[in-house]
Amino acid sequence: MMKLAPSILSADFSNLLKDVKIVEEAGCEYLHIDVMDGHFVPNITIGPLVVESLKGKTDMIFDVHLMIEEPEKYIEGFSKAGADIITVHQEAPVHLHRVIQLIKAQGVKAGVSLNPATPISTLEYVLEDLDMVLLMSVNPGFGGQKYIPAMTEKIRKLKEMIAEKGLKVDIQVDGGINPENVREIVSAGADIIVAGSAIFKTEDVSKAVQNLRMKGEG
Amino acid sequence: MMKLAPSILSADFSNLLKDVKIVEEAGCEYLHIDVMDGHFVPNITIGPLVVESLKGKTDMIFDVHLMIEEPEKYIEGFSKAGADIITVHQEAPVHLHRVIQLIKAQGVKAGVSLNPATPISTLEYVLEDLDMVLLMSVNPGFGGQKYIPAMTEKIRKLKEMIAEKGLKVDIQVDGGINPENVREIVSAGADIIVAGSAIFKTEDVSKAVQNLRMKGEG
Amino acid sequence: MMKLAPSILSADFSNLLKDVKIVEEAGCEYLHIDVMDGHFVPNITIGPLVVESLKGKTDMIFDVHLMIEEPEKYIEGFSKAGADIITVHQEAPVHLHRVIQLIKAQGVKAGVSLNPATPISTLEYVLEDLDMVLLMSVNPGFGGQKYIPAMTEKIRKLKEMIAEKGLKVDIQVDGGINPENVREIVSAGADIIVAGSAIFKTEDVSKAVQNLRMKGEG
Amino acid sequence: MMKLAPSILSADFSNLLKDVKIVEEAGCEYLHIDVMDGHFVPNITIGPLVVESLKGKTDMIFDVHLMIEEPEKYIEGFSKAGADIITVHQEAPVHLHRVIQLIKAQGVKAGVSLNPATPISTLEYVLEDLDMVLLMSVNPGFGGQKYIPAMTEKIRKLKEMIAEKGLKVDIQVDGGINPENVREIVSAGADIIVAGSAIFKTEDVSKAVQNLRMKGEG
Amino acid sequence: MMKLAPSILSADFSNLLKDVKIVEEAGCEYLHIDVMDGHFVPNITIGPLVVESLKGKTDMIFDVHLMIEEPEKYIEGFSKAGADIITVHQEAPVHLHRVIQLIKAQGVKAGVSLNPATPISTLEYVLEDLDMVLLMSVNPGFGGQKYIPAMTEKIRKLKEMIAEKGLKVDIQVDGGINPENVREIVSAGADIIVAGSAIFKTEDVSKAVQNLRMKGEG
Amino acid sequence: MMKLAPSILSADFSNLLKDVKIVEEAGCEYLHIDVMDGHFVPNITIGPLVVESLKGKTDMIFDVHLMIEEPEKYIEGFSKAGADIITVHQEAPVHLHRVIQLIKAQGVKAGVSLNPATPISTLEYVLEDLDMVLLMSVNPGFGGQKYIPAMTEKIRKLKEMIAEKGLKVDIQVDGGINPENVREIVSAGADIIVAGSAIFKTEDVSKAVQNLRMKGEG
Repeated sequence: MMKLAPSILSADFSNLLKDVKIVEEAGCEYLHIDVMDGHFVPNITIGPLVVESLKGKTDMIFDVHLMIEEPEKYIEGFSKAGADIITVHQEAPVHLHRVIQLIKAQGVKAGVSLNPATPISTLEYVLEDLDMVLLMSVNPGFGGQKYIPAMTEKIRKLKEMIAEKGLKVDIQVDGGINPENVREIVSAGADIIVAGSAIFKTEDVSKAVQNLRMKGEG
Repeated sequence: MMKLAPSILSADFSNLLKDVKIVEEAGCEYLHIDVMDGHFVPNITIGPLVVESLKGKTDMIFDVHLMIEEPEKYIEGFSKAGADIITVHQEAPVHLHRVIQLIKAQGVKAGVSLNPATPISTLEYVLEDLDMVLLMSVNPGFGGQKYIPAMTEKIRKLKEMIAEKGLKVDIQVDGGINPENVREIVSAGADIIVAGSAIFKTEDVSKAVQNLRMKGEG
Repeated sequence: MMKLAPSILSADFSNLLKDVKIVEEAGCEYLHIDVMDGHFVPNITIGPLVVESLKGKTDMIFDVHLMIEEPEKYIEGFSKAGADIITVHQEAPVHLHRVIQLIKAQGVKAGVSLNPATPISTLEYVLEDLDMVLLMSVNPGFGGQKYIPAMTEKIRKLKEMIAEKGLKVDIQVDGGINPENVREIVSAGADIIVAGSAIFKTEDVSKAVQNLRMKGEG
Repeated sequence: MMKLAPSILSADFSNLLKDVKIVEEAGCEYLHIDVMDGHFVPNITIGPLVVESLKGKTDMIFDVHLMIEEPEKYIEGFSKAGADIITVHQEAPVHLHRVIQLIKAQGVKAGVSLNPATPISTLEYVLEDLDMVLLMSVNPGFGGQKYIPAMTEKIRKLKEMIAEKGLKVDIQVDGGINPENVREIVSAGADIIVAGSAIFKTEDVSKAVQNLRMKGEG
Repeated sequence: MMKLAPSILSADFSNLLKDVKIVEEAGCEYLHIDVMDGHFVPNITIGPLVVESLKGKTDMIFDVHLMIEEPEKYIEGFSKAGADIITVHQEAPVHLHRVIQLIKAQGVKAGVSLNPATPISTLEYVLEDLDMVLLMSVNPGFGGQKYIPAMTEKIRKLKEMIAEKGLKVDIQVDGGINPENVREIVSAGADIIVAGSAIFKTEDVSKAVQNLRMKGEG
Repeated sequence: MMKLAPSILSADFSNLLKDVKIVEEAGCEYLHIDVMDGHFVPNITIGPLVVESLKGKTDMIFDVHLMIEEPEKYIEGFSKAGADIITVHQEAPVHLHRVIQLIKAQGVKAGVSLNPATPISTLEYVLEDLDMVLLMSVNPGFGGQKYIPAMTEKIRKLKEMIAEKGLKVDIQVDGGINPENVREIVSAGADIIVAGSAIFKTEDVSKAVQNLRMKGEG
């Protein structure tokens, strides 16, 4: 069954908890928290303090996506702030295996994210340590992009790779997903769907969530 | 007359507007917005999206303090998000004069901030272009620090330097300020006082503001 | 039919247009413009201003090879300066897919270049967006190197990869190519041959070009 | 007597020697060669190869201004390419004293350049080793800027500093200089005037040079 | 026959030669010299001066493992200091092929090391130029780690890759190796075993070496 | 009374303790430990492990001079390894005041070092927190340099600055000091003299130390 992870970036930061409550009540499982440092990606968003302000006020899974350089420096901070999953980019650290162990040592689930151009073969020796792989279906940190069609095949190949190794690793997909293309993405193997404007920027969030889920599950 | 700039970092990010309204009603003039990128300082806080969420919802002066590397990349973003003043660090850009012009070209007031160890002589050729100088009285981005006593003399010297040049540039001071030391800081020449926990982390914000102001103005 | 791209680095920069005219009249199709920033490679060569000085004065295809870090910053500049193709290095940007879209958004053809050690599997998810792949057959930015024999097999594999995907992507090869080895390289699948001294540093450029082409096409 | 240094950036790079000859015949003493790496400043211009192409073809003094990071890497290259003076930025290297010795060890004259915001006190312990100080009167690497008025006072103070130490160090000024303001700049103490469009982008270079010199010398 | 490379990091630096003599007499073939710069890995260890102090005082093979950024800068220094093999990390330089040629040009054997997460496909176009591949079986530069089980399969695959290409390249394995797991590692294809505390931190080095070898060779 | 700090770089690293004992017995007070990371200076020397190997084996004062970038990362490591004084470069950290507090929080004495070109005015707001200032009288990390004569005046001015502020801060001088120039340096105000080859590379260390001290104290 597909899970939904509304991206916090589309929420109203002047009253964040209200928007979080809305998506929680609409049945979304994960709160996708997009952390950008202005260096790994050309935007700065939010840090541990914002995450911490929500801690204990919702039951959603805090799914922290670190689009930052030197992520090893911030694992502990986000863990203490309440993260349930921390995802780092394959392209960011020189010592990827180490960063994954750091996350797990905090008692937090570990994910690795791949930029659109990055092959899945880069995960060969860490896949078994992961709880989730996040495939970016747009370029992180840049606005106004559409779902990159070649990513559907990438999802499929990753699904196969996970199956071949006999692992249980969730595939999360993030970028340009909407009711029109969600079926294709879920069919290819996505377990968790990140959506921003397709959820928050709608008149009726609850309906939007239902619709996305219905379309996604076919 | 001394002005007050409560630091947004001590507000509740789960319902930010509420806290902003409280300090606005308590009579604070500036909203001090601490932007950290995890590179210039070892913390990540908030970016343009959070600032934008408050735009048009308060009359406070948006006083954006960029504790980031390559600030030139984010001037336009924060300007569009509603900044009234943008302050960059002297230690951050190689082309400081240029960055100041960039800020002013956006129709925004320009400030420069100095770390505790940085001499005021570094401002010699840009002071006349500035609306404000922010003297850090603790090291930015690190928690749990006390006001550095040597900064009082620094405020005094900067005040003199501004007077000698016949300029009208505000002096803002940030770090470890509380009712006990605010008089000393204002007497030395501070025009705008940044305060975090001394305002937000009090039982009665309005009283805390009044007290701080009363003490500051002697 | 093989195409020729004389490298501007072997031309006389004190009268550049004259040398460009000579290779144009000798029938060369591309002008290979080697841009180095002293950071991605240990040499600084030329920038947009030099390219722009030639704009409109020749019908050669301006084939700009960016051996620079953060190529995203210079796409627009080189496009305006007259580039017809812009090639970036796979090893340079973190957001390779994004940079390719930036190039295409300028209405310019997009290429990606691989250093000798970089596997072609790094192109898996961007190949379909490319007009050209440039395989370096020497290490870029360093002088006095010979063609690396292992690159012939790399050309062959890339040719297969392109064919398997049913794409039409040109293969350009650059480094140490001369009349003795050009046949091997073209046979393996190269479409466009970059040559510097083998063209410019000859007594009769026209003959050198004819000879290279004859040898290359077998 | 004031000396003139036309900036190569305003010449025609498609036939560079021709333009160099024109300014040489017009009586200009220095050829100001602006080297930018796209990192210290946001533009890439030219490197050693372009300088070398002019070597031995003119008697002008090759005055190489390195607006690059890690200038120590390129001292030897520009020296071999024919540089007579090499100027590095105070803001670029951590080991400024060392870089100056490197230049002098090549038998080349040494200059240091200051960005508009950089105080002259940064030169205190190297001034006696220098042949020239280049005061930037606009921000290097950015187009369309006007002469910064505060620089006139900076020239004056540097002139005094040189006199007090009993040294013979030339002051070069670069940026936004034209017949209207050249008198002020020369009066303040400038020995060498860099000019780009005020020389090259005129109908009669010879007249422009004469005019600039006449105005400058009052 | 398996070879042993005791890691210098477990020796007593207050009397280094004494410890080197002990492992030499115990029959160890290589002296594994771990060079860390505090940037590629979060530790600083030793540089060329320390290596040079041992030169000519032992017959062990000086096996220098560069866990540093920009290794190209230090090839010559370590070669002159007495290195017999220099190993650089695949993850460190942009121009890996070039660095390997630099090592060989010094008349020194060349190795490339892979971090635990790095796939062996990154070696495809340089394997034939190498004398040794060093597979890290812990993350370099971090203390207190255990052998990563997934590395055994990596050794096996690399052994196959070497065999398929008909090459003679040694496989060295470093990290968490002890008498309990050495058999598994050697069986998988390791030719040279790096060991630190398993050799130096034992009561009888000679016995420890014998035991490790006996266990390793089965 | 002048104190002597022999630089460990001139000792024999194959039997370090022996050389340390020799200078200790010769009456030298400090052991000057030069830490270089290959980034702040172009050499890599030694790290905490080497310092730790000497801990408890000598009574000399461990005087650790960090010629490294991001010194804040290694304060704790060197403190635990036995450092009595830790000196960082003014040019290295953005948050100099903070680094000094970090050192003092370890219960270690704090020093700041200035490169030859760096003015003493950069110390204005930290001098009162320091136990020592190290003035480099050659460029750190580069070999074969002579004492820079302009440094004598710098020592004198620093001595005055310390006196004016009524502080007790030692002045250490490092680079190119020998029996011929030591008097000039001590007369100008140096309290601690670093010497390498002038102590270790002599036939009789004890005599060399005596001679240096006698000459220095006039």
